[in-house]
Amino acid sequence: MPLARKLGAFVALSAVELAVLDALHKRRRTFVAGRDLVHQGQSDQAAYILASGWACSYKILRDGERQIVDFQIPGDFLGLRSVLLHTADHSIEPITDIEVCEVHASDLLGAFTRTPRLATAVLWAASRDEAMVVEHLVGIGRRHAAERMAHFLLELGSRLSLVGLATKAGYACPLTQYLLADALGLSAVHVNRVLRQLRETGLLTFRDGYVTYDDYDRLLDFAGFDPVYLDHTGPLLR
Amino acid sequence: MPLARKLGAFVALSAVELAVLDALHKRRRTFVAGRDLVHQGQSDQAAYILASGWACSYKILRDGERQIVDFQIPGDFLGLRSVLLHTADHSIEPITDIEVCEVHASDLLGAFTRTPRLATAVLWAASRDEAMVVEHLVGIGRRHAAERMAHFLLELGSRLSLVGLATKAGYACPLTQYLLADALGLSAVHVNRVLRQLRETGLLTFRDGYVTYDDYDRLLDFAGFDPVYLDHTGPLLR
Repeated sequence: MPLARKLGAFVALSAVELAVLDALHKRRRTFVAGRDLVHQGQSDQAAYILASGWACSYKILRDGERQIVDFQIPGDFLGLRSVLLHTADHSIEPITDIEVCEVHASDLLGAFTRTPRLATAVLWAASRDEAMVVEHLVGIGRRHAAERMAHFLLELGSRLSLVGLATKAGYACPLTQYLLADALGLSAVHVNRVLRQLRETGLLTFRDGYVTYDDYDRLLDFAGFDPVYLDHTGPLLR
Repeated sequence: MPLARKLGAFVALSAVELAVLDALHKRRRTFVAGRDLVHQGQSDQAAYILASGWACSYKILRDGERQIVDFQIPGDFLGLRSVLLHTADHSIEPITDIEVCEVHASDLLGAFTRTPRLATAVLWAASRDEAMVVEHLVGIGRRHAAERMAHFLLELGSRLSLVGLATKAGYACPLTQYLLADALGLSAVHVNRVLRQLRETGLLTFRDGYVTYDDYDRLLDFAGFDPVYLDHTGPLLR
């Protein structure tokens, strides 16, 4: 269960806590790529735990422009904000076919009542999500395009490795250049140019749905990537 | 207590819940303007509940550039992420002299154990903070400067009104043009020009530490501001 693996980075989960987490995975559903499962502006949304596949959360502006806020990978919540706020402030689209478990606000409250440590763990996960959005804000506000791309692909790799989906060599990545463009505030043409630059300078190759680190240490340095905000150093709560 | 007032927008707080919240306000401290109380990169930080005054959270990049992530007003947590993640991913600076209450991770866990509904309420507050960072990301990524500024000042007004610090006419605001510049990804000169534009077009006046809405409805429309992500429509949990 990727969520247990992820939360395990924050809290050493007891058997009871694992059972409560497991019970949150009852209502399994599948969604096909490209069909939104949460709609910006809708009320009374459920949240979902992503079991397999990739999704993205995004906002559409008045002029029809789209800003992708983040991508979600197995173990991530989809629309956790939407189940707590009255109205979804964003949409969520599966990038691949996905399997999810539907979670209602009452399920969360029930789980927190049984194991308050789990509440802290979910708050940790939400804080980590926020830390990532902050990094994307800093990226768009202050990093030049190649550095922004390198930072973003390193962050994805680090997140994927926490749930066993990446190695030090690289990872499978279904993102198109259009998706990367909408996330990084670049044009698709610019994304293509930046990826070529990263490849030609021997840092990273993104080809045929796979990201390969060509020189991991130099890439870290180039991107100024310090994964400390992803908080993978082991459980704080024992 | 501004935090109770804010959380009351999400959950109708019982007497017990109010007492637990109140107990989180034991360790009162004051900090003077300009002296960081949380440092990016430090471990074992406490979190704080802001009782009075204004603060800002920011990140410094390698080249020394600063990106302000958000401003905090009474009722907001300072460094909630920093108490859950091993290492603070950002710094916090008081903009005015501030009064805060220090909160440790163990205090939060204790409070959640006594009243799990409070855990949901704090998760709501964290989700709302994240929704604001998302709006700032969208602003920097997709909104032109005047629209970005108008949206930002409307958001601040809406947040302040929830804790009784703004009216439909406007609000007292200690932010300098330098702080606005670092938050909005603009230069101070550009901030000055944009504020003049908003004033000359009869939308908003920011002068002598006070933001006055000159035409609230037209300003909402100009900024494309829909406060639904701030979730002020009344408690979801009764």
